[in-house]
Amino acid sequence: MGRRYDTVSFLTDYGLVDEFAGVVRSVIRDLAPHATVIDLTHGIAPFDVRGGSLALARSIGYVASGVVLAVVDPGVGSARRAVAIEVAGGEGVLVGPDNGLLAPAVALVGGAERAVELTNKEYQLATPSATFAGRDVFGPAAAHLCNGVDLLDLGAEIDIDLLMPGVVPLAQTDDHLVIAQVLWIDTFGNVQLNVGPDDIPAGFGEQIAMRTSDPTDLTGGTTRSARLAESFAAIGAGAVGLIVDSSGLYAIAMDRRSAAEELALGVGDQVTLTADESGGPGVTQRVTLRGH
Amino acid sequence: MGRRYDTVSFLTDYGLVDEFAGVVRSVIRDLAPHATVIDLTHGIAPFDVRGGSLALARSIGYVASGVVLAVVDPGVGSARRAVAIEVAGGEGVLVGPDNGLLAPAVALVGGAERAVELTNKEYQLATPSATFAGRDVFGPAAAHLCNGVDLLDLGAEIDIDLLMPGVVPLAQTDDHLVIAQVLWIDTFGNVQLNVGPDDIPAGFGEQIAMRTSDPTDLTGGTTRSARLAESFAAIGAGAVGLIVDSSGLYAIAMDRRSAAEELALGVGDQVTLTADESGGPGVTQRVTLRGH
Amino acid sequence: MGRRYDTVSFLTDYGLVDEFAGVVRSVIRDLAPHATVIDLTHGIAPFDVRGGSLALARSIGYVASGVVLAVVDPGVGSARRAVAIEVAGGEGVLVGPDNGLLAPAVALVGGAERAVELTNKEYQLATPSATFAGRDVFGPAAAHLCNGVDLLDLGAEIDIDLLMPGVVPLAQTDDHLVIAQVLWIDTFGNVQLNVGPDDIPAGFGEQIAMRTSDPTDLTGGTTRSARLAESFAAIGAGAVGLIVDSSGLYAIAMDRRSAAEELALGVGDQVTLTADESGGPGVTQRVTLRGH
Repeated sequence: MGRRYDTVSFLTDYGLVDEFAGVVRSVIRDLAPHATVIDLTHGIAPFDVRGGSLALARSIGYVASGVVLAVVDPGVGSARRAVAIEVAGGEGVLVGPDNGLLAPAVALVGGAERAVELTNKEYQLATPSATFAGRDVFGPAAAHLCNGVDLLDLGAEIDIDLLMPGVVPLAQTDDHLVIAQVLWIDTFGNVQLNVGPDDIPAGFGEQIAMRTSDPTDLTGGTTRSARLAESFAAIGAGAVGLIVDSSGLYAIAMDRRSAAEELALGVGDQVTLTADESGGPGVTQRVTLRGH
Repeated sequence: MGRRYDTVSFLTDYGLVDEFAGVVRSVIRDLAPHATVIDLTHGIAPFDVRGGSLALARSIGYVASGVVLAVVDPGVGSARRAVAIEVAGGEGVLVGPDNGLLAPAVALVGGAERAVELTNKEYQLATPSATFAGRDVFGPAAAHLCNGVDLLDLGAEIDIDLLMPGVVPLAQTDDHLVIAQVLWIDTFGNVQLNVGPDDIPAGFGEQIAMRTSDPTDLTGGTTRSARLAESFAAIGAGAVGLIVDSSGLYAIAMDRRSAAEELALGVGDQVTLTADESGGPGVTQRVTLRGH
Repeated sequence: MGRRYDTVSFLTDYGLVDEFAGVVRSVIRDLAPHATVIDLTHGIAPFDVRGGSLALARSIGYVASGVVLAVVDPGVGSARRAVAIEVAGGEGVLVGPDNGLLAPAVALVGGAERAVELTNKEYQLATPSATFAGRDVFGPAAAHLCNGVDLLDLGAEIDIDLLMPGVVPLAQTDDHLVIAQVLWIDTFGNVQLNVGPDDIPAGFGEQIAMRTSDPTDLTGGTTRSARLAESFAAIGAGAVGLIVDSSGLYAIAMDRRSAAEELALGVGDQVTLTADESGGPGVTQRVTLRGH
């Protein structure tokens, strides 16, 4: 027998309209009645493995020890492997598809220590199809782990070095320029960048110029001035600020308004940060790169 | 005293914007603190008894033994009866309105064995109105059942043969033609038909012609070729496939895209399946029935 | 040590797309594994303190004894205080921002008895930012209260008379006229008014004339006749009724349809009620106040 667990932290792209998440919760309840399922979110956009991996990475430092069950799995039923990855000396096991979804979270808690492919049908549900691995493969694995089934009983051990890596874009930084990317836009419209306090050169000061653009915009995008602020309220009404968010990264934000809407930003957009030489907050200017 | 239960599996059309589901969870927590509520879904479309009955039928084989609490109840406060239905030798009790919502799930677990109308006010909350039976009637009944209150104490026993039946449309099938109906479109855009593997004549082969139409479309609709596939990935990029879904029924599907959007299909639409004689995947043709 | 609690009833404007609510649930699970979190709703509109306070007030009479954790907190990180308020002889503690969110619920359960500002960092999480008090301040406070930490250990006691009051609009009533306001539109489109059965003069009878208008509509709005009804079904197909809702207030409602959509009503709109002298249900007339 392995260690028993009491908590399954659960993240998917199932949404909350269909009963998918509920059926997986039911399967766990049936197999491991002592376990509590903590829903992290089921609101990852359909098939968005990268978005799911980022949400899991933002959460992982706060989940209770136990099993993490994460399913964003566009390749369900194909050759992608179903895996369980042990971390932190057995404090936790992450269960899900081996498609990069789990990788950033695994890295944040010290890296994979052991891993298996979920090949043992004895710990899976018999099923009419190969389309709902959350119900038939991953959920049962999470439940059996809670019951003390040993990791190595769930399937064949695999080389942790061959687990699929995650892809998190790095910002490009020099003394004068930070080229960042939008990682996440939250429900309040805060725009998280892949840039932390240590990534912004000290010489930039408290007022930052942000040029936002997307690749299809040939005119060069829009430049906004943003003040570094410690709270939404400190940004001031109608102004745009840069705030260290709850993940420790900079987010473009406004007070009680959606910065994403105001600046028309989406996930993956590029944002270039420089020291603001235009002199002051709230200035907006159109930079035209073409001659007419 | 009756048998005690530990689990209430909970499905409604309450949505998750209002606090309705939360208040019912609170009532159960207050009356039966030992019971765990497992949310199946609260995303049934408002008043959609048939959609709720199908979601419950898809879930029922996976819920833990105990109480199932289902509320899609447009007739709340009217003459429709509030009922509790015992199934499977007391393994489970389904609680909800007697409007067909529970019927397909009850049938799937072997049929009703005993049933009562929830008439005993002693096991209900005093209430200012007759509009929130989930809080005042159904939720308390579920909690009291968990506490070991006998089914027959909740109200007057009723004839199980007089419970409202559910309505699930059957496909029409002959050797050359299957006239199916769309039962459900899930959050990924998979289009579930009321047709299982045994319903498609063997002579159809692996490539199926699907004609989709709605009654107001006099020009005959669109015909698409779909390949029987075992996984989403096996359908191939951009192609449309037929896949056995997690309920054991055929679903029209695409790889990482919404088939419902691509084919403009909605719940209740008719889809006609025949052997594909056009020769191959991905062919789309417009069939005009009228002379001009 | 204080009293221990087993239940945290949880309401926010976090939505269910992001993992915010899930991370707070995780923090509570980690700190107080014996506690059960009952989600009331996370669907309060972003920053809508008033909407959140009304949802909490509608729920409070049904939550189990224990901790209520409510976070709608546009002023997070600013000077607004984070508080815990003890009520009902210690039966419950409400935790959240001191911005009026908690006030109506606190009043409904007898008023604040003791309160502290959550200033003791020992019972908070170390954090990179001041943007996610649910995770770093409020959630931990709720968990520690469940563990029996004394209220006064969470921070400095504050004067209950200086807690921020809630703002709930009162209807204006005389013998001939009730000027009401829309408090809430639920997921089914029922339109709750700030008027209960005792607020409508008896002389109005069973048929009520409702004039709906918004301040920008100079032509006087639309008048509809509505019948007092005891259930949605009793309103009759296509007609508009006034029904006592589950909070004990009047709601404008239709049978299996959205009254809010039919009457184009929104939260905060004014609705004027008078006796209906036009003679009968379903009559609609345009009242023009201007001369042309």
